Amino acid sequence: MIRLSVFYPSTEGATFDHDYYRNSHIPLCVKTWGLDGAEIDKGLDGPNVAAVHFKFASPEALQAAMGAAGTADILADVPNYTSIAPVLQTSEIVE
Amino acid sequence: MIRLSVFYPSTEGATFDHDYYRNSHIPLCVKTWGLDGAEIDKGLDGPNVAAVHFKFASPEALQAAMGAAGTADILADVPNYTSIAPVLQTSEIVE
Repeated sequence: MIRLSVFYPSTEGATFDHDYYRNSHIPLCVKTWGLDGAEIDKGLDGPNVAAVHFKFASPEALQAAMGAAGTADILADVPNYTSIAPVLQTSEIVE
Repeated sequence: MIRLSVFYPSTEGATFDHDYYRNSHIPLCVKTWGLDGAEIDKGLDGPNVAAVHFKFASPEALQAAMGAAGTADILADVPNYTSIAPVLQTSEIVE
């Protein structure tokens, strides 16, 4: 099982629309990539303002999602909710 | 629901013992804090070599865990598996 985490590090003057993220952007990701859901974090303390965690069955499934036609639309949607450059992390879920 | 994520950012020359982390350190955390479990990430691509995600029922439950007697032992165990300074993130799980 593969986790794709996307982090939004807090930076001076950065904006982040948590409502849009939850109600519009993440549903678009879930639909585009055919996932069951995603876990959304609203940062309380630490380096990140927000984060999301998606699970994929395999590295190949993640790679297919990244290459999917709709992924360009997902990337183009980022400026609609934040001025922060997302940081991507891919991990193997070992437990 | 509160998520405590702990990240281990990759740094030049850093070491990380994934086996010890999974088989000894995280079980110690789970036992000390009375949790059902934790999700462990082994980094494949991105800034972090490893990460863990714990869930707490409330900010108060997290605070109680941080102040628990055994938490000092958990912190003292860190040098047994890594030379990386852990980065802590607390978040509200919004979905």
